[in-house]
Order: sequence, then structure tokens, then C-alpha cells
Amino acid sequence: MDFAYDTTTGQLREKLLRFMDEFVFPAEPVAERQLAEAADPWARPAVIAELKAEARRQGLWNLFLPDAEHGAGLTNLQYAPLAEITGRSPHLAPEALNCAAPDTGNMEVLAMFGTEAQQQRWLRPLLDGEIRSAFCMTEPDVASSDATNIATRIERDGDEYVVNGRKWWSSGAMNPDCAVFVVMGKTDPDAERHRQQSMVLVPRDTPGVHVERGMHVFGYTDAAHGGHAEILFDDVRVPADHLIAGEGEGFSIAQARLGPGRIHHCMRLVGIAERALELMCRRAVQRVAFGKPLANQGVVQEWIAESRVRIEQARLLVLKTAWLMDTVGNKGAHTEIQAIKIGTPLMAEWVLDKAIQAHGAGGVGQDLPLASLWAQARTLRLADGPDEVHRMSLAKRELRRYR
Amino acid sequence: MDFAYDTTTGQLREKLLRFMDEFVFPAEPVAERQLAEAADPWARPAVIAELKAEARRQGLWNLFLPDAEHGAGLTNLQYAPLAEITGRSPHLAPEALNCAAPDTGNMEVLAMFGTEAQQQRWLRPLLDGEIRSAFCMTEPDVASSDATNIATRIERDGDEYVVNGRKWWSSGAMNPDCAVFVVMGKTDPDAERHRQQSMVLVPRDTPGVHVERGMHVFGYTDAAHGGHAEILFDDVRVPADHLIAGEGEGFSIAQARLGPGRIHHCMRLVGIAERALELMCRRAVQRVAFGKPLANQGVVQEWIAESRVRIEQARLLVLKTAWLMDTVGNKGAHTEIQAIKIGTPLMAEWVLDKAIQAHGAGGVGQDLPLASLWAQARTLRLADGPDEVHRMSLAKRELRRYR
Amino acid sequence: MDFAYDTTTGQLREKLLRFMDEFVFPAEPVAERQLAEAADPWARPAVIAELKAEARRQGLWNLFLPDAEHGAGLTNLQYAPLAEITGRSPHLAPEALNCAAPDTGNMEVLAMFGTEAQQQRWLRPLLDGEIRSAFCMTEPDVASSDATNIATRIERDGDEYVVNGRKWWSSGAMNPDCAVFVVMGKTDPDAERHRQQSMVLVPRDTPGVHVERGMHVFGYTDAAHGGHAEILFDDVRVPADHLIAGEGEGFSIAQARLGPGRIHHCMRLVGIAERALELMCRRAVQRVAFGKPLANQGVVQEWIAESRVRIEQARLLVLKTAWLMDTVGNKGAHTEIQAIKIGTPLMAEWVLDKAIQAHGAGGVGQDLPLASLWAQARTLRLADGPDEVHRMSLAKRELRRYR
Amino acid sequence: MDFAYDTTTGQLREKLLRFMDEFVFPAEPVAERQLAEAADPWARPAVIAELKAEARRQGLWNLFLPDAEHGAGLTNLQYAPLAEITGRSPHLAPEALNCAAPDTGNMEVLAMFGTEAQQQRWLRPLLDGEIRSAFCMTEPDVASSDATNIATRIERDGDEYVVNGRKWWSSGAMNPDCAVFVVMGKTDPDAERHRQQSMVLVPRDTPGVHVERGMHVFGYTDAAHGGHAEILFDDVRVPADHLIAGEGEGFSIAQARLGPGRIHHCMRLVGIAERALELMCRRAVQRVAFGKPLANQGVVQEWIAESRVRIEQARLLVLKTAWLMDTVGNKGAHTEIQAIKIGTPLMAEWVLDKAIQAHGAGGVGQDLPLASLWAQARTLRLADGPDEVHRMSLAKRELRRYR
Repeated sequence: MDFAYDTTTGQLREKLLRFMDEFVFPAEPVAERQLAEAADPWARPAVIAELKAEARRQGLWNLFLPDAEHGAGLTNLQYAPLAEITGRSPHLAPEALNCAAPDTGNMEVLAMFGTEAQQQRWLRPLLDGEIRSAFCMTEPDVASSDATNIATRIERDGDEYVVNGRKWWSSGAMNPDCAVFVVMGKTDPDAERHRQQSMVLVPRDTPGVHVERGMHVFGYTDAAHGGHAEILFDDVRVPADHLIAGEGEGFSIAQARLGPGRIHHCMRLVGIAERALELMCRRAVQRVAFGKPLANQGVVQEWIAESRVRIEQARLLVLKTAWLMDTVGNKGAHTEIQAIKIGTPLMAEWVLDKAIQAHGAGGVGQDLPLASLWAQARTLRLADGPDEVHRMSLAKRELRRYR
Repeated sequence: MDFAYDTTTGQLREKLLRFMDEFVFPAEPVAERQLAEAADPWARPAVIAELKAEARRQGLWNLFLPDAEHGAGLTNLQYAPLAEITGRSPHLAPEALNCAAPDTGNMEVLAMFGTEAQQQRWLRPLLDGEIRSAFCMTEPDVASSDATNIATRIERDGDEYVVNGRKWWSSGAMNPDCAVFVVMGKTDPDAERHRQQSMVLVPRDTPGVHVERGMHVFGYTDAAHGGHAEILFDDVRVPADHLIAGEGEGFSIAQARLGPGRIHHCMRLVGIAERALELMCRRAVQRVAFGKPLANQGVVQEWIAESRVRIEQARLLVLKTAWLMDTVGNKGAHTEIQAIKIGTPLMAEWVLDKAIQAHGAGGVGQDLPLASLWAQARTLRLADGPDEVHRMSLAKRELRRYR
Repeated sequence: MDFAYDTTTGQLREKLLRFMDEFVFPAEPVAERQLAEAADPWARPAVIAELKAEARRQGLWNLFLPDAEHGAGLTNLQYAPLAEITGRSPHLAPEALNCAAPDTGNMEVLAMFGTEAQQQRWLRPLLDGEIRSAFCMTEPDVASSDATNIATRIERDGDEYVVNGRKWWSSGAMNPDCAVFVVMGKTDPDAERHRQQSMVLVPRDTPGVHVERGMHVFGYTDAAHGGHAEILFDDVRVPADHLIAGEGEGFSIAQARLGPGRIHHCMRLVGIAERALELMCRRAVQRVAFGKPLANQGVVQEWIAESRVRIEQARLLVLKTAWLMDTVGNKGAHTEIQAIKIGTPLMAEWVLDKAIQAHGAGGVGQDLPLASLWAQARTLRLADGPDEVHRMSLAKRELRRYR
Repeated sequence: MDFAYDTTTGQLREKLLRFMDEFVFPAEPVAERQLAEAADPWARPAVIAELKAEARRQGLWNLFLPDAEHGAGLTNLQYAPLAEITGRSPHLAPEALNCAAPDTGNMEVLAMFGTEAQQQRWLRPLLDGEIRSAFCMTEPDVASSDATNIATRIERDGDEYVVNGRKWWSSGAMNPDCAVFVVMGKTDPDAERHRQQSMVLVPRDTPGVHVERGMHVFGYTDAAHGGHAEILFDDVRVPADHLIAGEGEGFSIAQARLGPGRIHHCMRLVGIAERALELMCRRAVQRVAFGKPLANQGVVQEWIAESRVRIEQARLLVLKTAWLMDTVGNKGAHTEIQAIKIGTPLMAEWVLDKAIQAHGAGGVGQDLPLASLWAQARTLRLADGPDEVHRMSLAKRELRRYR
């Protein structure tokens, strides 16, 4: 259980920290301005293209991808501290490094399971940051945290698959650059529980694809993540070679996709919490109320201390999880992967709530990133299924030893 | 300590409940649609005018105003259960009944302290629901929960007062119908601490008034409350007779304004929590996950039970506060007024959080009122000063007995 | 919903408050000393007999008993504020007034369901404070919060009932003055679920009754409540006329017994919390740490304010419950009776925890009542079944409206 | 940051786990019985001497002492996982291995700062487990978490020091084998703040030492820790060579003593929490309520999952702290040393509370270790100063970067 930075990580951290200071943080107000002036609320601000070019020039590109052929070839433990750093500016940095969800998961899936042709057509431009992608899993009418409930159908018809169903919270699909959807559906409802599902690639412009609207998240469009679309798939036909891996592989692909995504999300949350704590501290030393700085007031001191304790604990658990995934695999790290999903968003939400409170009314408004980051942390208590599902599952594994 | 509904309250409750069922709830989707189609994001949906006309016709009008000459002449205890009912549709019902903040507070101030001319010009059209108003207290650069920090200046110059300063979170000011601002500022910075402040009426179209932008609340514009504006007052000149009550009266007017506002806010929060609980229960009986309805799952049952316990407790404390205000006045009810400000938003926030969680991703989106109501409850932990200020003050009063 | 003190309550409160000041609080150190010097750890300190005599002389006697023939004839709402006052010295005052559990419940049962002979033999001396009694419900081997699980058998054999079974947490049974046990068991395991149980009176000295040991509560013997015994009933024979009410009535007697007991417990908890808050405040103004009194430190102020808010809410809900029981009966007050069982011990536990923390190491020791009161509050989260059972049941009732 | 077990730790763990299974757990009921039958409530059960002999024979002895000359020479990181294991039977295992507080801290102090003669007279028999010792720091009348408040005087008078003062919560002093006290007092109240204090060795039988009573902890005597005594030092004279290190060194000795003690306490708490979780799981699979095992009930599953998440996080933070202390020293690990003091007792308290609740009434009684372990965890929120002091201090360090 060695969490120290090795040489590679150490060097990348230094480079990335410099990149954040020189390019990303200065780009934040620029992006705000460009967004405010944009005609298309879903278009990404122009400054991001510049950040991407610079990041790629510096070799800060596709760091997330463990596959050394297509990506940086880092282990989870090597990438985790870098993901944390990008979490300090989560609306710009992950995208600048081509390390933003849901493309990361989709690229991993394509790198692991894609055919040569699929990789050529979609993985290549994704790796180059030329297109974006979406992941279509959640459905409005069923508890889709239980994959056996998925109602969308993917049916073979000659040389084609026909997709019918309704998805929502399809992250990334509102981004104008989004070119392809990874869609989960059932090819064989009569197969064994976890062999009913398949995943298929659906180009966005395929007839029958209706991107109906962007779902809001506590009032935000979440355009930085390409929004979360409600999509109707109405007799959508794609060539049979658009299937990923094979019929019945959908569930196991989804499982493989999960682990690294959790590490990324959770490390970014740690970075988000660090940024919130920094903002809270800066506010505390500057703001005077009732005759003394907030920094001298006991309640604010408690928030700061408690934030530090919680952040440290969460970070260590995510690092341990990354290390476990690298050494014993996703399956061996199952308990930890669930544990960080349960613990980290709550931690970040707590720290953000206190940082907001320390800022007064300004904390809930648009001049600070706190409220929108809070919404993001809160939403992660529901993403990939509500925490309660993960607690139930973790408990069952814990109890198994005693039965 | 008698909280029972008297005959008046009982009759008004019945009438109001019927009004909610027949007019308000059916108007919710209409308002949503009108808002979605509106050109001006700040304009109120047309259906509200219809609701107002109907409410007035039915005598469900200005119920909040204890002044029997201008309003319904109800006591706080009589009005409280009615305010709770309006909280079940908080974006429509309070406005429909002409009982929406911040006009309620402004009307009370004008009814209590306004001159005949001020009442004619502003109170009358406010009571008739023809114009709206804003309250300008909070400032960006100081901890304005401590009124002695207010930096805005109101200076006498001949027959005029000259207002200079910057306000933000001025609720109501983005509403196109908002015609007048009640502005808190200092007339005499050298006077005794609580005699430095005054309040002045500033017509919105006065030269030098710059409504710069609407502040967001967790991504929402909060247009239903007329938004929360940042406003620059730059050498704004108003006739001397626009002053309310007299120089140095600003602090005590603000104090008088506080108590009833808390009752209103808190009873609406109780109504909001009831609505959230109802939505959670409805969801629980309908949604099946892992083979059984949420309603049969222990964790969801805990949320529901705990919500009921918390709601009951909060309601009773607000009712007691209302009763105290009616019987011993604002001052005698000081501890309770602070207690409900501390306890009720947290209660509502908790219930809403669980209701959101029970709805999965849908809970954070725009198809349900839960996320926006959560943002409202969360913001009330900061409105009128952060809870921490009120806890500090309540504790000091409690400790006084032992010194 | 009128919670005001009527004349009777007002007069009794005054008298009782005076009695507390003149007799009970001064007796606390005396009782401590007598207990420390006692040979029998279960004997009650001699000072209690004096308190009882004085209380009876003053008419502060059997106030709990709504039956006007045998007791004070007060309503629940009238008695509740008196129970709160006794909670300020919970190890002496309830017993001094002959209002201590479990005798109160047993006396109620005997007054309601006892035969003339049963009343003569047991109710009379209980009402006179000459004997004590115990209630034997909980069993070690089954989840006895579900009465259908009760394993103790009460079998008819000629003119006798034969009792066999093991009970624990039989409160009151270690008290040397305890003369009789009210025992719950099954007379007919084949009857309808809630008609299987009966209650029988078992004199303590009946052959076959083995009081094996006193259970500890966080290190305390809880001798003030007569301890909590583990008792083996081994072929214990009592005359058939020792049955209460009739075969199959056990469950409904237990239900009838529950409501008032909750009011008593919960109001005493409110009194306990008030005492804890008072001790915390006194400590806060006296103790200096890091250069200023605790009373001036923000964190301690938060504890005090939050305590006040929670106490007020809990008290109001208990009062409402008492009022409901008086007006619509136990059944109509079911939700509230469960709500106070869920909310009040947690409230008291929280306040006590903070009061302990404010006292430093002294808070957990024997010089202050805080630690032992904490243990009492904590245990009430389990008494009459764990809170979780009550939350589940309350939720089911709440959900019923939506099915 | 490498937390993996090295070979030494791995071998010791295996040996210790076997020792626990073969000797310690079987000794638990034996010790209970011996304690119940003991005449002297403070005497340690005879089985402990056997455990000590066996542990020493196996080389599981003085593992805590980093000094290789006198102890096992393990680093903090090597010892931490062993301390966790002893926490699974905290009333026997630490003492069996001669690794129990407060002797551990006292031995460390003597090993680091003791003179040859002091080591010969006290360290040797302590290392051999022949005598026990106490640490006398806390005082009843001052906030002694701030060392500058210490009121006990240690005054030079010729060849002697004269000690005057009152201490309480002097852990270990009630143990009949306790032979010596390490006493903190002031030699020079006029010196610089942190040079006023000194530490002196006081043999227990020195005239003027009055061990007045044992303080209780939630009803427990805590005899397993040698109790917590109130001691009057009344003109107690010891030879001048009984001073440790030198006049004015008291504060820095206390600081040096702190770090390792925290690691020990916190790792044992992790072990305690693991044991509680195991008991909760075992109960959950065995106990049936309302028709299904607790293990199948959602609320209990949440407790189990949340316990696992919290335990994992706490353990990692303690391990990191141990590693930091080994690599950068106590000072460099200051934040983490405070963080584990704040976070770990709360974690253990939470897990224990849930384990208690899962056991029903039995959870608060003497048949399970849960209630007494809870009392221990709760008390650690106050030991070495209340958590609030540590949060304040941690926050100040965090804020320093932004000033």
C-alpha cells in the first residue's frame, strides 16, 4: 500500500500545477465572459480550444487512459493525484486535458472492446479532442441503477440493430461537438440476468434520434459537462458492426467502465473540496463581522478544521482504491470502489456547504464557483445509482463473511 | 398557548384549500409553459394575473396584513396556517394572494410608518397588486447582518436626500412591475449605533439608479421572487418626504419588519416540507427498485418517519412564535423568532434532500419542484443574516440569566 | 390545540417548583451520600421516605393518575408540565411524588383493568407508596418489540396459571420494596396474533421466581429505577384470579399502558434537557479557557442556541401529544406518540452530550448528573422497542394515505 | 507514503493474531468471572498475569517502544497495525503485551529523558511489567488543556522538590500495582509561557500523597485502565533527582509524549470499531425481527456500510500520521496528529452506537463489551483536551497560509 508519487507522477504534477497557474485559472474569468456572451448556451467557450492546444503541446493529454498505445499509460494511482488537481478548476481543466467525463469512460470502452473500425472512426477523434461523446444509460421510467430493469431495446434486424427507448440524464449529449452515443439496451430479455444487455454506438445524426431537451441540475444546465439530455430513440437503425464487443456483453462492459470513473470523479471531488476550503480560508481572513475576522470565530474555525479532517480521510481512501485497482483489479477493489462513491460526494458537499455559509449570500450566487460545485457534488450522490444502492450492496458483501 | 384554528381561520383555510385545488395546482404546469415560452425571463407568467383576480374575488387577498384598515386584519396566529398552505405552491400561491415577499414587509412598513402621501402613492397600488417593490438592505462589501456596518449613505441636501451606495440581493428588484425600492442607509454615521440608519423610498426610475444584474441562487434566477438584484445608487436624489418615519428610525423599522416576515417564511417552509413529504410518499408507493416498492424499503421509511417528526416540531414552534408575537409582541418573542429562523430552513432542507434522493436523478431536475425549493430553503439559512449570527444572539440571551 | 396551563396546573406547578427548591434539590447531595454509604446497593436512600411524606402532605402525590378516584385526576396535558419539572431531578423527584416508572404504568393498568381484589391487594399499597412493582415484558431471546414473539408461557392448570419463561430488563425488580411483577406471556399461541398474550400478577416471593441479576446500563445499576432484572420464571404458579382483565387481553393492555408512559418519559426528558442546558450555561459563564469564558466562545454558543431550539420543539410536540390523547384518545394520537418516542430521547441525548463536552473530563464522571442522565436518555432509544421499529410503523401509517 | 506491512510487521501481526485467538479471546470470560468475584474492585484479574507471561515468552512484549535498547524498536508505522489488533480486546490485550496506557507514555518519557538512576528504579520494572505507573496532568479547577493554566506547584527546597496541588483523572493511579506518578506542575510561574512547567517522579507511597477516590466514567470505574484518580499532593517532598530532564522542560516532554500516544489510542479505536462492526454483523445475521433477519433490513445495512466506510478512512489517516511521524517527526505531523484525535473517537463512537442499537437492550448492558467501549471512545473526545481545542488549533495552522 504505497501511495507516494513516483517520478512520473511527480513530474506530471509539477507540470500540471504550473499549467493550472499559468493557463487554467487565468482562463476562468475569460470563459465566464465568453459564456455570458455566447449565442448558443451549449457551445463551449473559445478559450477551451486554446487550453486544449496548450495542454496537448505540453504532453498533458489523455492522462486518464491506462492504455499506453492510445493514452498516457498511467496507472490509476499515478493518475489520481493529477485528477485531483484538475478538480480545482473542474469546469475547465478536465476538458482542457481531454480527461472529461463521459468521454473518458467511452474512450476506455473503445480502447478495450472496440473493433479496429470503431476505434478508427470514433476513438481516434475522441483521443484528438475533435469530437465529444455521450453515455446513454439512465431511463426515466425504471430504476436503472439495477441494470436488469433497462427497458430500451436493441434488436437485430438483418444487418442492422434497431434501437427503441427513452433515455435521460445522458451526459454530454447537449454538447454541439457530441458526435456519438454509447447506448445501453437489451438485446435478449430472456437471457440470464446479466447477459440481457448490450451496448451499441449510435451516431448522433442517425434518423430517429431525438435529443429532446437538456435536464437541469439545481437550475444549472451543466453545459460544462455537455449537459444531460433526454433522448428518444425511435426505430433508430445502425449497422450491426456498431455493437460493442458482442451481444450480452453490456453489463460487463458497464462494470469495467465503472471503477476508473469513480476514481476520476472522487479525486476531482477532493480537488473541489480543497478549492472550497481555500476559498473559505481566504474569506475568513478577509471578512470582518462583529468586530473580528471570521478566521477568529470559533464556529468558522470548526468548519475549517473539520473540512481538513474529512478531506484528508477521503483522499487517502480514494488513493487506496486506486492502488487496489492497480494491484488486484476492479473486482478485488469492489468494497473500496463503493466506499468512495458513498463517502466522497458527501464529504465534498459538506465542505462546500460550509464554504457557502462562510461567504454569506455571495456563496449561493454566480460570482463564486461554490454553488455550482455544490450542485455537482450533490448530484454525484445519485449518479451511477443513489448511494443507498451502494450501501446496500457493500453491506451485503460485509455480511457474507458471517453467514 | 392556544394554537387551535378559530372560526375565521377555519373558514379561510377551507376556502384557501379549495382555491389551491381548483386554481393554483392546475396553474402550475401552465405557468411552467408560459415561463418556458416567455421572451423576458423576468416577466411573470400570465396565469398569475388570473389567479390574483380570482383570489381577490374570493376575499383571499392581503391576508398577511394585520392592519384591518388596509388588509385582512388577521393575527399572526390566524395567518400562519394560511401561509403554510401557500407554501405548498410557493412559486404561485403567495403572489396570487398578494402575500409575497418582499412586498409584504414593505406594505407593513408603509402601513405602520408611511405618511398619508406615501400610502397613497405606494401602499395603495401595492395592496391592489398593481405594482411590486423591493427591499434593499444587503451590501456586497460589508457584513450587513450587523446593521451598524451598512455603508450606503443617505444624505440630506436641501429638500432632497441623496443616496449613494451599492446593494445586492435586493429581492424583487428584477420584476418588471417593481416600481419602488425601500432602501436602508446611514443618515448619521456619528449617531448612537442604532440611530445611524434610515430608510427611504426610491422610485425605480429615479436617475442614478442602476439595476446592474440579477444574482443567481444555485443556478436559478428566482424570478418568482422578482430575482435578487445588484443595484448601484449613484447620487440618487429623492424628495425629502420620501424618508420613512424619520432620520435614525431605520434600525427600529427593520426590527419591526423582521418578526412577521419570519413567520411567513417559516410557515411557507413548513408547507414546502409537507409538499416534499407528499411527493416522497407518492414516489415511494409507485417506484419499484430491487423487487419491491421504495415504500417497503427501510431506509426510505426512515426518511418518511423522520420527516414527519421534524415537520411537526417545526410547525408547532412557528405557531408558538406567532402566538407569542400576538400576545407579548416582537420583543417578548425574540428567542422564538430566532429559534424558528435557525430551525425551520434546516428542517425543510433536510426533508427536501431526502425527497430528492428518493426521486433519483429526476429529483435534481426541472420536472419536479424539489431542487428549486431546496435552493430556496438553503438560501434562507443566509437570508436576514446567516444562522450563525442568530445562534450567537440567542445564546447570549440564554446566558444572560446566569451571569 | 390549547397548551396553556389552566388554573389547576398553574397552582400545582407553583407548588411543585417550590417543593423542588425547598426539598428535592437539597436532598440530592444527601441521597448521594446515603447511597455511597449504603450496605445494600439496591436500597433506596432514606431521604426519599422523607420526601415522599412531605410530597404527600402537600398534595403532590399520584399526580400522574388520571383516574380521579385513585389518583389526582389530571389530564395528560395537565400532568405533562409537572412531569417536566420532576425531570429536573429525575433520580429523586418522580419517586418522591409516587410518580415513578414502572409503578405508574402498573397502577394505571390496575386502576383500569384490576378486579376489586387485585386493587385492594396491590393498587392500594402502590398508591400509598408502600410497595413497588416491576413490569416484565422484554425477553433475551426474541425481538420482543414485536409482541407476537413473546415466548413466555402462561398456562391454565386448574385454578392456577403456570408461568414459564425468561425475562430481562424487567425494570424495578431489583428494588427491595418491589412486591409484585406484572408479567406478559402467551396463554394461547394459536389465537389470532394480538389475542395470544395475557398479563398476570406474580407476587415476587412466589416459588419458582428467580431474580438472577441486575442488568447494567452503561456501567450504572440504575438503582434509582429499581434496576433492570433478569428473571427466570420456572413453573411459577399463581391463582387464576391473578390474571389481569382476561385471557388474550395482554396486547391491548400493553397498548393502553404505552401512551401515557411516553408522555411521562418524554416530559421528564425535556426536564432533563433543561437541567443539562442550565448546567452548561452555568459552566460556560464560570469556566475560562484560552483567555475568555466558554460563554464567549462561538462553538459553545452554538451548542446553547441549538439546545434551546431543540428543547422548545420537543416540548411542544409532547404537549400536543398529551392534548391529543386527552381529546381524541391514544389511537388518534398514535403518530404523535411515536413521534415523541423517536424525537425526544435523541434531543435529550444531544443536549446532554454537549453539556458533558462543555464540562471537560468532569462531564463523564460522578460529580455531575450528566453522564448518568445521558445513559438514561440513550437507553430510551431502545426502551419499548428500538426507535427504528417506531419509525417503520410511523412511516407505514404516513404512506397509507397514498396507496 | 507507503503503508504496506513490511516483513517484521507481517510476522508480528500473524503471531499476534494467533495469540489473540489462542489466549486473549478465551481469557475474556475468565477475566469477567474473576472480576466479578474479586474482593478488591481495583485488582486486575489473575488471568492477566498468565497472558503477560505468555506474551513475553512469544516476544510480543513492549512492542510500542521505538527505543530498540529497551523495547521492540518498531517504528510507529510498524507498531500501528499491532495496536489495532490489541484494540479488538482492549481490556486485556494491551496490558497483556505491556503496551497499555499510561505506562507506555511514561516509559517513553523515561527512555528518552530519564537519568540512569531513574531508568534503573522505574523504567526497568515497568518494562518488565512488574509495576504500573500513573500520569498526573489534568486538574479540577483549571482548563488544563492549556498547559499554562496548570496550578500545581513544584518548588525547589534544598535537595528536594515540594509538590502541592490537586489532580484528577490521573489514569492508572487506582491500580494496586501503581508504584509511581509522573506529575506535571509549575516550577517557575514567571518564566516564558512554555518554560514554566516541569515533570517530577513521585513514588506513590510518598507522605502527603492522598489518592482520594476513583473518578467514574459513565458509571464504569475503568479499572482496566487503572481507574482515574483524584489525588491531593499536600507538601509532598521528593529528592531533587526525581525531576525529569530539567526545570522548564515539562511542556516539551508533554508534547513529545503526545504523538505516539495518539497513534496508540487511535489504532486501538480502529480495532474497537472493527470489533463492534463484527458484533453488529453477527447479530444481524442471527436476529430475526418482523419476519426477517436484521441483516436483510435496509436501515441495518446502512449502518454496516457506513461503518465500513468510516473505519477504512480513519485507519488510513492514522497510518499516514504514523508514517509522517516516522519520516518528518512529531512537528511535521502536527496537523495529522490533531486530525486523528478529532476524527477517530467520533468514528468509533458512531459505530459503537449503531452496534448497540442493533443489539437492543442487551447493547447497553454488561453481557457485551459495546457499552463500556462506547464510554471509552466518548471519553477520548475529552482526553488530552476536548476536541474543540484541537479543532481550533488545527484551523489556526490551516489559516496561517492565507494571512
